[in-house]
Amino acid sequence: MKKKALVLLSGGLDSATAAAIAENEGFELAAMTFRYGQRHEVEISSAKELAAYFKIEKHIIIDIPTEIFRSALTSSQPGAVPRNREINTDEIPDTYVPARNILFLTYALAYCESMGASDIFIGANAVDYSGYPDCRPEFFVKFEEMAKAGTKMGVQGIPFYIHTPLLEMTKSEIILRGTELGIDYFMTHSCYDPDPDGASCGECDSCILRRKGFLDAGIPDPTRYRKS
Amino acid sequence: MKKKALVLLSGGLDSATAAAIAENEGFELAAMTFRYGQRHEVEISSAKELAAYFKIEKHIIIDIPTEIFRSALTSSQPGAVPRNREINTDEIPDTYVPARNILFLTYALAYCESMGASDIFIGANAVDYSGYPDCRPEFFVKFEEMAKAGTKMGVQGIPFYIHTPLLEMTKSEIILRGTELGIDYFMTHSCYDPDPDGASCGECDSCILRRKGFLDAGIPDPTRYRKS
Repeated sequence: MKKKALVLLSGGLDSATAAAIAENEGFELAAMTFRYGQRHEVEISSAKELAAYFKIEKHIIIDIPTEIFRSALTSSQPGAVPRNREINTDEIPDTYVPARNILFLTYALAYCESMGASDIFIGANAVDYSGYPDCRPEFFVKFEEMAKAGTKMGVQGIPFYIHTPLLEMTKSEIILRGTELGIDYFMTHSCYDPDPDGASCGECDSCILRRKGFLDAGIPDPTRYRKS
Repeated sequence: MKKKALVLLSGGLDSATAAAIAENEGFELAAMTFRYGQRHEVEISSAKELAAYFKIEKHIIIDIPTEIFRSALTSSQPGAVPRNREINTDEIPDTYVPARNILFLTYALAYCESMGASDIFIGANAVDYSGYPDCRPEFFVKFEEMAKAGTKMGVQGIPFYIHTPLLEMTKSEIILRGTELGIDYFMTHSCYDPDPDGASCGECDSCILRRKGFLDAGIPDPTRYRKS
C-alpha cells in the first residue's frame, strides 16, 4: 500500500508542482485547500481542477472566517493589492496574511495525526518570493520543533515530515521541474487580484514572479492575462 | 485606553479563570471559542454566558470541520469517553485531540496580528491535567519561538505574549484564585460527556479533576451532576 501524504493545494503554480513531486515520490495524495476571503477565490476552482487531475479522492476545503486574516489579499477595497512594484524581499508586503502558513500547516498536522499520515507537502518557496516570514526555512524548522513538542506523535517519537521541496528553487526551476512531471500550468492560478472572469492582472507580485519564471525557463506562459 | 487581550474561552473552569486573571491585569478582553464536534457542545453555551459575564464585545466562534480532529472527544460512539479511570499523566489518553491547542493558538495569533493585539491568554494547566502534550510548558516555549519566526510581528521584533497563568497551578489553586476574582463556577462546564440536558457525568477525567479541585479547595462544588 502506498504511503499517504497531505498536500496543501492552493491552486497556484507552486502547490501544483509540490503535488506532482509528492506523487512522483510514490505517495498517495490527499489535499487541503482553504477559503479565507482571498480576492483570488478563483484559486479554489484551480485547486479542484488540480485535485481531479491528480485523482485525489480526499480533497478537504476548509473555511476560515475572513476577519481572522486582515490583509491586502483579503481586502475588498479596490487597489488594495500593489501593482508593478519593485519586489524587495527585505520588506514584508501588504499582501502578507497574518499567520497564514502556520494555520494551514496546523490544519494539515491535525488531519494527518487524526488519519495516521506523517507526510505533509507545502509548496513554499524562499527564493523568488515576496518576503513572507512564513516561507523562510527557519520558520519551517521551528514549526517542526513545535509540532514535535505539542502532538502525541511528536511526544511518542513517531516521525513525521513537513516537505518543502520548492524551498530553495527559483520560480523557473519550479516551472521546469513541474513541466518535466507533466503539469499543464494552464490549470493553475497565481494572480492576487484577478478579474471576475478569472483573467490574471499581470501586475501584482505574484503575476510578476510567475511571468518572469516562464520567461527564464524558456517555456511559453499559458496564463490568461487581462486584456488591457 | 486599555490594552487588548484575546482569551481562548472554552467555557470550562480553566479558561474562565484565565479570563478573570486577564481582566484583573487590566486588559480589555476579546474571546475566541471553537466548535469542533466536541461531545460537550454545551461548553459553547457556557462560553457565551462567560463572554456576557465579562462584558466581552468581540466573541468569535469558529467552526472547525469535525473530520480534522479524530478523538474520543469528538466521537459519536457511546462509551468513547473513558470513565472512572486512574489518571496517569505518563499516558496520553483517548480524549487527546490532535493538535488542538496548536490550532486554537494559531487562530488566536492570526487574529491578534490582524488586530494589532499582542496578548493571548490560554487556560492550559500542566499540574492537574490529563497528560496532553499541548498543555506542557515546553510546548508553549516552542510555540512562541515558532510564532516569532513565522509572523510579521515576530520578524519585526514587536513583542507578543502567550500568557499561561494557570500552567503551574493545581486545580484547587485555580478554583481558589477564580473564586477570589468573583467567578461563579456554575457558569462553567467541564464534563467531556454530558447528558443532552447539560448535566455532567461525574466520571470522565475532566469531571474527576474538577470534583477533586473543589474538594481540595474546600469550596462547594456548584456542578450539576447526572442523577444516577
